Amino acid sequence: MAKSTAKKTKLSKKEYESRVPRLREQLIELQVQLKSANFPVLLVIAGVEATGKGEVINTLNGWMDPRGLEVFAFHPPTDEERERPAMWRYWRCLTPRGRLGVYTGSWYTEALREASIPRSDPKKFQQAMKRIEHFEHLLVADGALVVKCWLHLSKAEQGARIKKLSGNPRTAWRVSQSDWQSHRAYSRINGLGRTLRRTTNRTGARWNLINAADERARNIAVSETLLQAFNGHAQKLKQQPRPQRSKAITPVKPAGLKKLAALPLDQHLSASAYEIKRDKWLGKLNELVRRAEQQRQSIVFVFEGWDAAGKGGAIRRLTSAIDARDCRVIPVAKPTDEERAYHYLWRFWRHVPRDGMVTIYDRSWYGRVLVERLEGFASDGEWRRAYTELNDFEQQLTDHGTIVVKFWLQISKAEQLRRFHHREETEYKKHKINEEDWRNRRKWHQYEIAVGDMLMLTGRPQAPWHLISAENKRYARLQVLKLSCHQIETALAEAQI
Amino acid sequence: MAKSTAKKTKLSKKEYESRVPRLREQLIELQVQLKSANFPVLLVIAGVEATGKGEVINTLNGWMDPRGLEVFAFHPPTDEERERPAMWRYWRCLTPRGRLGVYTGSWYTEALREASIPRSDPKKFQQAMKRIEHFEHLLVADGALVVKCWLHLSKAEQGARIKKLSGNPRTAWRVSQSDWQSHRAYSRINGLGRTLRRTTNRTGARWNLINAADERARNIAVSETLLQAFNGHAQKLKQQPRPQRSKAITPVKPAGLKKLAALPLDQHLSASAYEIKRDKWLGKLNELVRRAEQQRQSIVFVFEGWDAAGKGGAIRRLTSAIDARDCRVIPVAKPTDEERAYHYLWRFWRHVPRDGMVTIYDRSWYGRVLVERLEGFASDGEWRRAYTELNDFEQQLTDHGTIVVKFWLQISKAEQLRRFHHREETEYKKHKINEEDWRNRRKWHQYEIAVGDMLMLTGRPQAPWHLISAENKRYARLQVLKLSCHQIETALAEAQI
Repeated sequence: MAKSTAKKTKLSKKEYESRVPRLREQLIELQVQLKSANFPVLLVIAGVEATGKGEVINTLNGWMDPRGLEVFAFHPPTDEERERPAMWRYWRCLTPRGRLGVYTGSWYTEALREASIPRSDPKKFQQAMKRIEHFEHLLVADGALVVKCWLHLSKAEQGARIKKLSGNPRTAWRVSQSDWQSHRAYSRINGLGRTLRRTTNRTGARWNLINAADERARNIAVSETLLQAFNGHAQKLKQQPRPQRSKAITPVKPAGLKKLAALPLDQHLSASAYEIKRDKWLGKLNELVRRAEQQRQSIVFVFEGWDAAGKGGAIRRLTSAIDARDCRVIPVAKPTDEERAYHYLWRFWRHVPRDGMVTIYDRSWYGRVLVERLEGFASDGEWRRAYTELNDFEQQLTDHGTIVVKFWLQISKAEQLRRFHHREETEYKKHKINEEDWRNRRKWHQYEIAVGDMLMLTGRPQAPWHLISAENKRYARLQVLKLSCHQIETALAEAQI
Repeated sequence: MAKSTAKKTKLSKKEYESRVPRLREQLIELQVQLKSANFPVLLVIAGVEATGKGEVINTLNGWMDPRGLEVFAFHPPTDEERERPAMWRYWRCLTPRGRLGVYTGSWYTEALREASIPRSDPKKFQQAMKRIEHFEHLLVADGALVVKCWLHLSKAEQGARIKKLSGNPRTAWRVSQSDWQSHRAYSRINGLGRTLRRTTNRTGARWNLINAADERARNIAVSETLLQAFNGHAQKLKQQPRPQRSKAITPVKPAGLKKLAALPLDQHLSASAYEIKRDKWLGKLNELVRRAEQQRQSIVFVFEGWDAAGKGGAIRRLTSAIDARDCRVIPVAKPTDEERAYHYLWRFWRHVPRDGMVTIYDRSWYGRVLVERLEGFASDGEWRRAYTELNDFEQQLTDHGTIVVKFWLQISKAEQLRRFHHREETEYKKHKINEEDWRNRRKWHQYEIAVGDMLMLTGRPQAPWHLISAENKRYARLQVLKLSCHQIETALAEAQI
């Protein structure tokens, strides 16, 4: 179970004052080291009411350099937050590498508050814990240090503390009706806390149980917990072997490669037949997107495919059926330096649509298992675990009611060459081709392997891959429209049940 | 008045289809050119109801590459937006350099909607127009191209169009009760539109009046307006002389330099006297900040001062009186590449606090008239007009009810040297000093001139500069606390009247 700090539970003022200066130096030293470190530190301060979570944070804020530290407090979710998957608001407040984020009213608070209401559904609490576990695991795997402190008081100590606070005119304002309520529900909340700590106590994100009965000892204990964790983490990183980046690309799931190769690419479609069908499906799509808006369901489209496979054209046809005011196209290229300072999923979470809106990602998070895998930007460990991370990300979207429609646009190597030449020869298309495209082309077979693995490992029933034969552009565009309609229609109907 | 496009008002289908391909090529060409341009394009589509603003945008979206274009539609303000100055939501949706932003339901819509309510206060409309004029002027001065189209229909044409839309089952959903309401109020709204166009028709952000009676002619007219404006803008930029960056730093307002020199720096304060007073003022500040929170007023602190003047220490004392959960410290260093893609004020607008919250800027927007002026990062024109821009920014904050507290921490050149040496000699302070600090120090006199000008040109009664004598750290910290209390107390009392 959670690590319990065997610190002294009572500290005289004299002893406290003699220890603080050294502690402050160490904390400042931590900040200096962190500045040039390649990981973020997330300090979570949780616990029962009246344990002084706010005071601990204010103390730390006073001891450390407030410029290198950010405090995140979560007030009730705003409407912008409520209209997105539950974890969106925490992704929004993530700490970038090299900085310290202190979280009070963290991702635990909302779940705990809901669960402490009598007769609330225990399954919802379990789900929330699962989500949090995934979230922290994701951060830890990326190198983040997550330090979690649970401030503890016995029921009697809590009662005495609330009474003391109410009695003093300088602190009485801090005591609200809900403190007394939560005092009366002590045993229930304390039990929930135990369950919470047990289910989310994983390597790299361990709980530290801290006795909050003595304020001085509590402040020291939190600081020392942070220092120990930081030093341990820095030490561990130093000893870690360099992440492996294997040169050879071998399939994880060879069936994917076969599936890709088996796709027939010889479809034909006359211009006139195309136009009639296109208009029919555009009308249909327009109606479905409006229905989704009325049902307050958002839609996420993902377009992946070979260079010159026609992603842009397909997106242009798609958007022509959607009210541009409700729709955003996010072209995904190299991350900005701000984006690079965060977990790789952060820049996709940023653009997750509000309920009823549409986001089209032109290339996407799948870059992690495609270009990043092939170019060695992601280590073997990183791209291998990404399949699970990407599935989990999309699961969060679909759990929230978002419809996730994914396309892979497939063309032959010969067709790509034709299109590259055509681009080079056409004045207004020249900008669409560069040295990188040629470089990627030389790695065609390696990409094929990565694509195959992606198709096999990240297609779930709620977020399936649509493999599009894109040799014939008209056929491909029509397929995109048709399959979008089918999937959206089914998802809307299911949501109504 | 607004430029009226003398385009043909009726276009046959045949003529339309013969013109579209060339137009599309030109629009794509515009996007290619824009990619490498150093300015953003903001296309505003406004006008009376039922002129087809949405259709125009969908058409453009279909004609252009949707990856290089972003559509911004403003739905009713979210709570996060309502709790900040009125223009915050538009800053949030600004277009970065090299991209095209299409705005429907732009900054005009909300003002127009409010003003069209019978018996609304005409002064509020004038204020809104003033704010918009400032906003657009700011963008234009920074090089942005703002193209504004007002789609026009006569009352009879509007009525016919609404009727036609309601009659067709495929478009009937687009007609709402408010369309008919707005039709009945046609003459009022049309008049408001006239006033709006007249008051916000400035160089670089001209209105283009477009007849929307014929849909095809309307689509062509908007596209051509955009193309002409873009080509004209690109041409103008080419012919513009290189912005001047004068080497010599001479005061704009010499009185500022005298004021700075006249500040006595010889205060003394014993450690014990300091501690008693400090605790008194900390208590007072804590109470005032809580009162501000109850009154839903936010507070912005600005700390400027010489390197090693003690900004960090003063901020640390200040934050010790504020609940860390309601307070953010924003250390301002070099802008990130994302920030650089926007107007220089964008990165400060991002962090403007919600009602009841506190933001402390450690260095600030005044960098524009200090380091950027001295190092030539801003041209003469840029830093000269910045005084007005900064005043206007703060005015928007104070108009919203935000309390803006600004400090300049002043030390002597000799004291700075002592502190630099001390930093170099102290292990845990070494990280606080680098080559840049020494470089800045060599430009001490030039900085003095810039600081003097800043103090003279950007102190307004609602956002005054507090000039702090910081030679004695204790004295300085106390002054910061005391003056913060005074200003916040006064502002809170005034807001109650």
